[in-house]
Amino acid sequence: MNNIPLVFWLVPIASVCALGMAWYFFTSMFREDEGTPRMKEIAEYVRKGAMAYLKQQYRVVAIVFIILAAIFAFMAYVLKVQNPWVPFAFLTGGFFSGLAGFFGMKTATYASARTANAARKSLDGGLRIAFRSGAVMGLTVVGLALLDIAIWFIVLNLFYNGDKLALVTITTTMLTFGMGASCQALFARVGGGIYTKAADVGADIVGKVEADIPEDDPRNPATIADNVGDNVGDVAGMGADLYESYCGSILSTAALGAAAFVGAGETQLKAVIAPMLIAAVGVFLSLLGIFLVRTKEGATMRDLLKSLSLGTNVSAVLIAVATFIILYLLGVENWLGLSFSVISGLAAGVIIGQATEYYTSHSYKPTQKISEAGLTGSATVIIKGIGTGMISTCIPVITIGVAIMLSYMCANGFDLSMSSTSLAHGLYGVGIAAVGMLSTLGITLATDAYGPIADNAGGNAEMSELGEEVRHRTDALDALGNTTAATGKGFAIGSAALTALALLASYIEEIKIAMERADVMMTNVKGEAISAAQATIPDFMNFFQVNLMNPKVLVGAFIGAMAAFLFCGLTMEAVGRAAQKMVVEVRRQFKEIAGILEGTGTPDYGRCVEISTRAAQHEMIFPSILAIIIPIIVGCVLGVAGVLGLLVGGLACGFTLAVFMANAGGAWDNAKKNVEEGNFGGKGSFAHKATIVGDTVGDPFKDTSGPSLNILIKLMSMVSIVMAGLTVAFI
Amino acid sequence: MNNIPLVFWLVPIASVCALGMAWYFFTSMFREDEGTPRMKEIAEYVRKGAMAYLKQQYRVVAIVFIILAAIFAFMAYVLKVQNPWVPFAFLTGGFFSGLAGFFGMKTATYASARTANAARKSLDGGLRIAFRSGAVMGLTVVGLALLDIAIWFIVLNLFYNGDKLALVTITTTMLTFGMGASCQALFARVGGGIYTKAADVGADIVGKVEADIPEDDPRNPATIADNVGDNVGDVAGMGADLYESYCGSILSTAALGAAAFVGAGETQLKAVIAPMLIAAVGVFLSLLGIFLVRTKEGATMRDLLKSLSLGTNVSAVLIAVATFIILYLLGVENWLGLSFSVISGLAAGVIIGQATEYYTSHSYKPTQKISEAGLTGSATVIIKGIGTGMISTCIPVITIGVAIMLSYMCANGFDLSMSSTSLAHGLYGVGIAAVGMLSTLGITLATDAYGPIADNAGGNAEMSELGEEVRHRTDALDALGNTTAATGKGFAIGSAALTALALLASYIEEIKIAMERADVMMTNVKGEAISAAQATIPDFMNFFQVNLMNPKVLVGAFIGAMAAFLFCGLTMEAVGRAAQKMVVEVRRQFKEIAGILEGTGTPDYGRCVEISTRAAQHEMIFPSILAIIIPIIVGCVLGVAGVLGLLVGGLACGFTLAVFMANAGGAWDNAKKNVEEGNFGGKGSFAHKATIVGDTVGDPFKDTSGPSLNILIKLMSMVSIVMAGLTVAFI
Repeated sequence: MNNIPLVFWLVPIASVCALGMAWYFFTSMFREDEGTPRMKEIAEYVRKGAMAYLKQQYRVVAIVFIILAAIFAFMAYVLKVQNPWVPFAFLTGGFFSGLAGFFGMKTATYASARTANAARKSLDGGLRIAFRSGAVMGLTVVGLALLDIAIWFIVLNLFYNGDKLALVTITTTMLTFGMGASCQALFARVGGGIYTKAADVGADIVGKVEADIPEDDPRNPATIADNVGDNVGDVAGMGADLYESYCGSILSTAALGAAAFVGAGETQLKAVIAPMLIAAVGVFLSLLGIFLVRTKEGATMRDLLKSLSLGTNVSAVLIAVATFIILYLLGVENWLGLSFSVISGLAAGVIIGQATEYYTSHSYKPTQKISEAGLTGSATVIIKGIGTGMISTCIPVITIGVAIMLSYMCANGFDLSMSSTSLAHGLYGVGIAAVGMLSTLGITLATDAYGPIADNAGGNAEMSELGEEVRHRTDALDALGNTTAATGKGFAIGSAALTALALLASYIEEIKIAMERADVMMTNVKGEAISAAQATIPDFMNFFQVNLMNPKVLVGAFIGAMAAFLFCGLTMEAVGRAAQKMVVEVRRQFKEIAGILEGTGTPDYGRCVEISTRAAQHEMIFPSILAIIIPIIVGCVLGVAGVLGLLVGGLACGFTLAVFMANAGGAWDNAKKNVEEGNFGGKGSFAHKATIVGDTVGDPFKDTSGPSLNILIKLMSMVSIVMAGLTVAFI
Repeated sequence: MNNIPLVFWLVPIASVCALGMAWYFFTSMFREDEGTPRMKEIAEYVRKGAMAYLKQQYRVVAIVFIILAAIFAFMAYVLKVQNPWVPFAFLTGGFFSGLAGFFGMKTATYASARTANAARKSLDGGLRIAFRSGAVMGLTVVGLALLDIAIWFIVLNLFYNGDKLALVTITTTMLTFGMGASCQALFARVGGGIYTKAADVGADIVGKVEADIPEDDPRNPATIADNVGDNVGDVAGMGADLYESYCGSILSTAALGAAAFVGAGETQLKAVIAPMLIAAVGVFLSLLGIFLVRTKEGATMRDLLKSLSLGTNVSAVLIAVATFIILYLLGVENWLGLSFSVISGLAAGVIIGQATEYYTSHSYKPTQKISEAGLTGSATVIIKGIGTGMISTCIPVITIGVAIMLSYMCANGFDLSMSSTSLAHGLYGVGIAAVGMLSTLGITLATDAYGPIADNAGGNAEMSELGEEVRHRTDALDALGNTTAATGKGFAIGSAALTALALLASYIEEIKIAMERADVMMTNVKGEAISAAQATIPDFMNFFQVNLMNPKVLVGAFIGAMAAFLFCGLTMEAVGRAAQKMVVEVRRQFKEIAGILEGTGTPDYGRCVEISTRAAQHEMIFPSILAIIIPIIVGCVLGVAGVLGLLVGGLACGFTLAVFMANAGGAWDNAKKNVEEGNFGGKGSFAHKATIVGDTVGDPFKDTSGPSLNILIKLMSMVSIVMAGLTVAFI
């Protein structure tokens, strides 16, 4: 165990602290009163629906995981083209990711009624419960992720201790547990996304457009399904998603660090544990931030926003400062440059968040213009929204471009020579920028997960008929969540791009290891025969002809771009189909069950929950499997060059498409809210009906297809990495 | 002139034949009767509006061209980083492209009333006039293109005769006139696209959705503008577009041929003129096809379709056969392999066309499902349409991928070693596949341009109140056009992708020449210092580090993907803004001019024409300039590696996005037609209103943003090629 320095133990300690605090926040939330019997009843409905869904979901995912693990085992033990640890690493990644989603959702379903109940007394009471419950999710995710990382690092160190290439093997093996997390995340996002939007779209179309009843009205049979959906998609889905991003960024950076400093002894070890330490310190700073979020009795909306921003901003600034200290104390080579890499990642996250807010908040022109387009009908709302969404890709893409260049150059001393060391150091810098972006996930995820809890609290308040004022308070809490969520989204999407880039480089490392395992010889840039172990990244680029004139690379890039569109198309269609079923069912209930609209008959909520559950389970399989299969086929047919083309095409196009979809959806949502606030005719006007169509179309954009793309990009990289052995066998 | 073999003269002869036949078809159409005074009046309105627009458009474009030509002249004569012929080549490319659009539109505006008048007597009379008028456009485009190519080839041969690298210099110089054509095409497509869709969307929203009056109703003030738009966008825009594709494919293939066979004497010359000869023979075969399109008196719809397909299919089959003969007789090295490259291009065009038809025709499931989604409202129609469009990218992308690999490998004897010769030969194969695809443009464009003429004939019939039966006949002609247009679109989009790929390789050649001109030394793969003239493509890839681990390449790819989205977003927004203005104006007229809706008051058509004209002129500038500026900036900041990343990212993402937009738009259009034919409630039903929203949203998708993307992709390559000298100066 002499491979593990003392300072590493900060990682498991941070993990235990995070999980402990999560438990503390959970129990203190649980002690609160859930409110009137009606509130309890509604909460119970939602809880049951959500848990039933999650059970069903995990059952399906378990089958997929068992099949995949069996395939990996076959590859590892029979074909010998795979590291023997992979099947286990894959399973733990999936398991912990699922666990994070489960705990988060459990908390959220207990918290919503309690938030509504606290909001009956005061706004800040509601905020405290909702935010702390969101923090349970944030802390569980980072706690479990660091736990998984720490355990595997310790276990693998026991096995590989003394081996010359130990750290490279350890880190690349650990990377494969990222694939388990990615897989779980994709199913959670796609399944949850289809569930929630089928219910939401269905409820909106019949409820708001046809029957003219408000959101969350208990007369709408799809209301419970809609509220279940918020938990299933926005909480459990997001938890699994960010668990995956968080692990992915740390693990790929560690792998890049191991590769960049091969044979450098101490330095290599430091490079490997640096991202873990930044993450660990980030946990403590997140905790600090969470405790800073407190409000006085009778706080105003502005106070609340200030208090939330204070928490996240203090954490972000402190982690920036802490990075310098950590890297300096650790004695990492070029600690100053690497710290600036982290800063450029953090700054990119902030800028993307700001741009997201500009394009999607109705305080600004773009969204206001979409509302205005409502005056000429739903068609112009859609055209305008799509236009705005597409234009909104500009700032995030340029920001990410600049962040990539800066983090790359800061890490290698502004060396653009593309020599093997400058390249390796530069890519390590890109990875660590992603780690920096996600290091305060504990608190940023708390502000994100807080949103659906507040949303559900509003639903509970409406259905329990708690009156105008309570509903007003929960609406304020919800609106608050939307504002902070923009920043969170910026970090999530920015880090996904940087992590995917780091994974690209890790893929080369995996190919190298696979070639060593298979004893395949290659030639270096100068044409001399060498073993894979001696090859540098430029050697690989040359040997596999990974340049832009290689038709395999070009075809790969085409397929990557297409994969992003195809995946989005499949998930959009799935939501469309499921929503149509929901509409038909709600119309049927309105017609067949007497007195629903008068409030005397009880709608059959269960039928709608069942429709969503079944549709989500049924529809999530094909797109998810596709994401796994495409890189395997491309690898076997087009080889390493084709896979890299695929990943780059998928990354560039997928990232842009994801920003477009998320922002268009967000802008439509707020354009509608803008009209509802009394502009362009207000509620019930022609423009309102038109913007509701926009909002409905935007639902799958922003909550199903868009967020799933982030995972798709990384999952394709992960699959390529895990399947590297197979690709090499086909060379 | 001993550089020019006798067989080359086939090219100018084909050009003259094409232009002569175009003139013949024009005069024989012109002799037909234009019908009743009312019909003449309507036609005159449309003609005047269209010509006024084109004049205005060419005035703006002329200014842009003069500025650009001045910049090129400065670069050529002062900075000396540019070939001295470029300013002139650029201007002729733009001029001829504009001329093709002008003639096509002139013909179309004379033909529509005559088609309507002929349709009063019989269906086949209408077909003959409309199709032959479409053929005027097709033949003018190919005739002018071959004329421009022939003249420049002869002139440059006079100047460079005897020079060792003559053919490389000549072909790369000629390539730059493609930039003139691309520029003109972009303005024509964007301006025309905004014009036509502003009018169409505006007319539909107020006319169909609000006032409940049918398409082309003379009571609708935007009707004339709508009809003008068809001519301006679908005829003049498409003409300039395909002129550009046609020239681009021939010129880039010639340049690749010159580069692939440097120093091979005769063989090199043969490789250069082979694409020109295939195009020339294609002209004759197109003419044959055009004459095959004849129908008996009293032909049924099915007869007409058969007759049209006969013409295009015979031409396509014959060019496939002729390719073998041409390449064999020419004595081109590997004539058999290259012929198969052409075949793979042709086959790809057919497959993409079939896939387009499957996804957009209401004879098939996908579009029918969109109609069905109308039962649950416009939101589900939009969701379903976007989903379908995204999924529909799958087949075209895979087809293009397979075509790239096949045409590459057939041309170099299935050699994937990426040695410099195998690479050069392979890329030449990709280029010649694009030439094959477009070789029968004379007839495929005729079937395309025929569509808007039939459409306008329908408009004229409606406005002149010619009665149910005539309108029925013109509708049949229009529907016929939609079916054949699908195939045409397949060829247009497929060839754009292949041509862009060929341009990518040509870019490297231009960089090489620019480096020679600037006397910049470089190193080859082995690290030895060499001059640019000695360098092979793999040397360049290595020297500029154009591999997928270079952050410059990755950032370039991100920006390329973003450029496609940004460009689409800007054009979508432009249409949205202009359409809103149109809606406001039409509503105003309905309110303020007494008796419009009763048919007693006359609407002010002129105001609507003016709104479209002004909006199009105003809105086309920014996106077009952006397309020119982005590659220049990327070249200066990120160098050659960044530019290649940009082009590949733009190509992969832009192609996919273009297919998505075109197909989604087409599917929405036909989903509406499907409902109008009596399905899901028929005209006036809830589903009809919902599908009209889909159709309206689809208008800018399929007729503004989608088609403009094809040109954007190629224009970015062309700009990079022309600016290569500047990029090299920044190395």
